[in-house]
Amino acid sequence: MVDFLEKAKESSRVVSQLDGAKKSEILNRMADVLLENIEPIVFENQKDLEYAGTEGLSPAMVDRLFLDEKRIGDMATSLREIASLKEPVGRVLDGWINDIGLRIEKVSVPIGVIGIIYESRPNVTSDTAGLCFKSGNVAILKGGKEAENSNKIIALILQSVLEEFGIPKEAISLLPDSSREGVAKMIKEDAFIDLIIPRGGEGLIRYVNSNATVPVVKHDKGLCHVYIDKDADIEKALDIAINSKTQRVGVCNAMETLLVDFSIADEVLPKLKERFDEKGTEIKGCGTTENIIEVSAHATDEDFNTEYLANILNVKVVSGVFEAINHISRYGSGHSEAIVTENYTTAEQFMNEIDASTIYLNASTRFTDGAVFGFGAEVGISTNKLHARGPMGINELTTYKYKVYGNGQIK
Amino acid sequence: MVDFLEKAKESSRVVSQLDGAKKSEILNRMADVLLENIEPIVFENQKDLEYAGTEGLSPAMVDRLFLDEKRIGDMATSLREIASLKEPVGRVLDGWINDIGLRIEKVSVPIGVIGIIYESRPNVTSDTAGLCFKSGNVAILKGGKEAENSNKIIALILQSVLEEFGIPKEAISLLPDSSREGVAKMIKEDAFIDLIIPRGGEGLIRYVNSNATVPVVKHDKGLCHVYIDKDADIEKALDIAINSKTQRVGVCNAMETLLVDFSIADEVLPKLKERFDEKGTEIKGCGTTENIIEVSAHATDEDFNTEYLANILNVKVVSGVFEAINHISRYGSGHSEAIVTENYTTAEQFMNEIDASTIYLNASTRFTDGAVFGFGAEVGISTNKLHARGPMGINELTTYKYKVYGNGQIK
Repeated sequence: MVDFLEKAKESSRVVSQLDGAKKSEILNRMADVLLENIEPIVFENQKDLEYAGTEGLSPAMVDRLFLDEKRIGDMATSLREIASLKEPVGRVLDGWINDIGLRIEKVSVPIGVIGIIYESRPNVTSDTAGLCFKSGNVAILKGGKEAENSNKIIALILQSVLEEFGIPKEAISLLPDSSREGVAKMIKEDAFIDLIIPRGGEGLIRYVNSNATVPVVKHDKGLCHVYIDKDADIEKALDIAINSKTQRVGVCNAMETLLVDFSIADEVLPKLKERFDEKGTEIKGCGTTENIIEVSAHATDEDFNTEYLANILNVKVVSGVFEAINHISRYGSGHSEAIVTENYTTAEQFMNEIDASTIYLNASTRFTDGAVFGFGAEVGISTNKLHARGPMGINELTTYKYKVYGNGQIK
Repeated sequence: MVDFLEKAKESSRVVSQLDGAKKSEILNRMADVLLENIEPIVFENQKDLEYAGTEGLSPAMVDRLFLDEKRIGDMATSLREIASLKEPVGRVLDGWINDIGLRIEKVSVPIGVIGIIYESRPNVTSDTAGLCFKSGNVAILKGGKEAENSNKIIALILQSVLEEFGIPKEAISLLPDSSREGVAKMIKEDAFIDLIIPRGGEGLIRYVNSNATVPVVKHDKGLCHVYIDKDADIEKALDIAINSKTQRVGVCNAMETLLVDFSIADEVLPKLKERFDEKGTEIKGCGTTENIIEVSAHATDEDFNTEYLANILNVKVVSGVFEAINHISRYGSGHSEAIVTENYTTAEQFMNEIDASTIYLNASTRFTDGAVFGFGAEVGISTNKLHARGPMGINELTTYKYKVYGNGQIK
């Protein structure tokens, strides 16, 4: 493994120095070569699908694995989109001349070698490799066992393009030892790897976070809330609540708990109930909620702590913005939180006091997303507080250094 | 411990919402109260000095421990300087309106609860507490056993001022269990602590980095180089080399290895030798160096890997900027690196290809420092690549969140 890691680190010196036009040319060429190889990719993907059948994977898992001409076309399109993004390396983030005439420039630079651990969908292989490459980083990819054959051929294709351009193929590679032991080793190789991004279930993320010596940027759970304030525009509130919960239920930026101010609960809860019934949403409620509308169960402390990722919602009536903030501070995962109100002071109190990556006023929680933010493709949504928070685009795959220009200054 | 940590986290909600004027008022009051308590501080400090005597600590260690009226005055002045720094919380770092009219604001916010592990100097207790408080963070301080009594009374004084202003005293506290086991527990409390900053020896830093589940920003070693290029202004080169090595030898931004282009080695090395001899610097040299000047020993691979923190220097003759970059990439610790040259292209190649927090053109490596950079007081010099790199001021003790203003938008 050390031999491989040395090569990966070495290749990072090459990739970090490529200019934007060259990187785009290479990424576009990767898109071409993917399209030229639809048949062998589908052939390898079949092996994974057969394995999935043997192992009895769920239909949802199988669907995520599946590749055809259209999906491979989407992968190519995604690489072309990444190619067209604004160059993330070399941005002058700040600059000044200090009091002894040193000209200090803070510029964005690649992070170095990034290890990414993910599951299922083979398109993540090309997307992530593309994002890392565009930002001048080396990608070490560890996909799921269930997508092994698909990931292998995709990586081989991308590597063939690197070699065509005289770039060491280690700049994009699958982790050679993809066993549990291989992962255990990788996350401790801080001499070679600069960042680990785990994308997957809670167990994986907890394991990586507890055992890594390499810095970790987590893509963890989202336990998101919407608070409908007494000064809310009720129509907006209904739309935002329905959308935050039901537009797509299995995602991290969907709402799990709805908080409603007590003074409007009598008016709002029956209307919400009607709208949620249309969407087939199961509602659990606090005591006050149970007195106003019919619910499936009493919402317990455990419910308020649960990321359902399903069409189930907790509803709680609160005494006002203060209790809403308290509830969210206790149960929220710091992902996305929303308030619906027309009152400026209440809105700012909520947005300032809540500690989360993204806080919405009068908009759905579902917007926490790199594309919505205008970042183009996204690496994921960071639940870290350090380095990157919320949607991570290619700029979040850079760090910075200081270039200091002197004229013989000594201390 | 959990009870204490819960209170610390709870107090972070209070501290994070204080406005700049209030924080400055409190910090200035802390400075006053320190000055009002010189006598008891000195009294407690005596106990630590006695302990130091019993334990036979080195004179340097004892000097670092020692407090008198002047040093306590410096601590107060430092708090006043921190009070006067520009408010780090609430800076709008970026902002835009996306294509569906969401107004997105990226604003700086406190990190939350910060654990700091340090040694010896009791002034670090008030400096660090002040920096954390000014940036809206809660500080959990773990000083060295040798400074226990001094740290305790300083913390008590700062806490008394917090309580005077109705702020929970847990916003600034010493770790209640300061044993090894206490530290081992603290660095795994990621539910309560958002960042650990270890400042100390390599052993401590390695231990914290290997065992923490809380994110760590390291203040690790500096193995710094100066490269004198063939196009260098020789006078500048001599001054910068002497200054980088000898201005203060026991610090992380001092030079350990000097690289000299072969085509000017015959001219430069004897001049360097003369100047370094005046400073009593011991020189180890590569083979070529040994042929030109007298050295104390042949510089080995191990020497090139050593952070001397002493008046010892490795000198190596290289074939040009390419070999210089290679050497630094292999042996450097990514802290501070310098090139002396008048050649624009060579300078930019060096500054772009070297991966370090700070890279100097025609200036001493000794400038990597928060005060020089204009940050005011500094938390330290980060050797992390993520979150904060190089000098860390109060802005580096903040993270960010997105505030998104909508008008009923749903997905």
